[in-house]
Amino acid sequence: MKNYIEIINKNLDEFLKVKYPPEIFEAMRYTVLLPGKRLRPVFCLETCRLAGGNIEDAIPTACAIEMLHAQSLIHDDLPCMDNDDFRRGKPSNHKVFGEANAVLAGDALISFAPQVIIENTKNVPADTLLKVINEYCIAAGCYGIIAGQVADIQAENFNYKNFENPEENLNFIHKNKTAALFKLALKSGALIGNASDEFMCDILDFAEAFGMAFQIYDDIIDEISTFDKLGKTVGKDKDEGKLTYVSLYGLDNAKCKLNCQITRAYDIIGKYNSDIFNSAIGKLGEGTKK
Amino acid sequence: MKNYIEIINKNLDEFLKVKYPPEIFEAMRYTVLLPGKRLRPVFCLETCRLAGGNIEDAIPTACAIEMLHAQSLIHDDLPCMDNDDFRRGKPSNHKVFGEANAVLAGDALISFAPQVIIENTKNVPADTLLKVINEYCIAAGCYGIIAGQVADIQAENFNYKNFENPEENLNFIHKNKTAALFKLALKSGALIGNASDEFMCDILDFAEAFGMAFQIYDDIIDEISTFDKLGKTVGKDKDEGKLTYVSLYGLDNAKCKLNCQITRAYDIIGKYNSDIFNSAIGKLGEGTKK
Repeated sequence: MKNYIEIINKNLDEFLKVKYPPEIFEAMRYTVLLPGKRLRPVFCLETCRLAGGNIEDAIPTACAIEMLHAQSLIHDDLPCMDNDDFRRGKPSNHKVFGEANAVLAGDALISFAPQVIIENTKNVPADTLLKVINEYCIAAGCYGIIAGQVADIQAENFNYKNFENPEENLNFIHKNKTAALFKLALKSGALIGNASDEFMCDILDFAEAFGMAFQIYDDIIDEISTFDKLGKTVGKDKDEGKLTYVSLYGLDNAKCKLNCQITRAYDIIGKYNSDIFNSAIGKLGEGTKK
Repeated sequence: MKNYIEIINKNLDEFLKVKYPPEIFEAMRYTVLLPGKRLRPVFCLETCRLAGGNIEDAIPTACAIEMLHAQSLIHDDLPCMDNDDFRRGKPSNHKVFGEANAVLAGDALISFAPQVIIENTKNVPADTLLKVINEYCIAAGCYGIIAGQVADIQAENFNYKNFENPEENLNFIHKNKTAALFKLALKSGALIGNASDEFMCDILDFAEAFGMAFQIYDDIIDEISTFDKLGKTVGKDKDEGKLTYVSLYGLDNAKCKLNCQITRAYDIIGKYNSDIFNSAIGKLGEGTKK
């Protein structure tokens, strides 16, 4: 895992070399390079390896997914969105570079990420690369994280308690907002690794289970953690009447649902003996016990 | 031209069918479908035809370029950017859908456009399509319109009169902010039409000349036109001390530079006998005489 993180950080740094005008590249670098777990790109590399591929071929795609993740954080933090002043323990992008540059840095990352994939991926057939980029576009846009974010804002603005079936809304939000990026990471790694049909099937099941577990974990953590541990404002979900697993089911039931998804994730991925996947699942379990 | 515009409008409408959550698709549709000249997508189709290709193959790319153009308008109009309340005679996107949805609609368009290309283009080899998408990404991002927009904001914030070589800044802004999209339209049309080297060379020269002419025209029009004619706030460049061809060289010299680029554009494209290109160049000349 540590080795993968180093590879990713080194390549992100190189892909994002500062050109003219420096302000935009610095704003992009700021959020992309904030220390983080790099879970999505690590998953992409690991899936490529498990599928029988060469991780070198998946590095540009893994980095592109981290860029897309950073983009979503930059725009989510904007005053007109979640209005968050901190991210990963540091001032959020617009607090450092101003709103205009934060909007533009996010915009730039959305199209720079597939540019990185196209210009730097070797040894992958053009039709496979088109599939990877198609998956990227689906995850990034109105059939992925944007759809999830819009549904999330609506649940907040219109008070989800009035919704006919808030459970359906909650699942839509998280399938699109969180699980979509994990699915992209895992599916693109499998595509680049030229995975068998069986492997692809397993990895997509795993993507769903892990993505769901991750989101429930995140909702629980927002309720029980502290700013110091998390590096971002906590307790906001509750204050703002957000639709989350905790607000809808209560803390204990949310933990129960989390454990369900964790068991499911272990079951699917167990046969591949991946320390990285096993440890990532394990951490979701531990995190909520503290 | 009219025929091309109809094809583009029909396809834009189909590509942007409203799905869940409707708000995001409606916000995307609102700006993309505002009546306009569709100059960039028309250029893409016409270039494909002149190169010897089938315009059917270029329709998704032509529509994608119009989507990218709309995206840049939505985000440029935001309060933290140019803060414009009107666009093409209608309230701008954030005035209708709110700032959060306007940011998200723009974000969604950036990745939806290449998704449309990949999912709807037939009869074009995968490696050619990758080149088209690469050009799209370059034009859309920190090596294209975003770079131009950042440099534009800087010239405004730091008063370009203090710059060592404001002419260089002005050329950078417009090469990236305006010419980049015309270059994308023309180059991608040529790629899809499987153009000869000579044709590609000519079309890239033409892209530069026409893009430059278009921007000088736009700067002049902002100075001399009215809200009724233009459907957007005019005279803002002057009020805000923007770096434009008019502010840097004066109105008469700007007109002179425009005529220079118009002559250059005619010279390059003349041998292809395209009514569409000739008439588009002609309109830039007429517009400033009124």
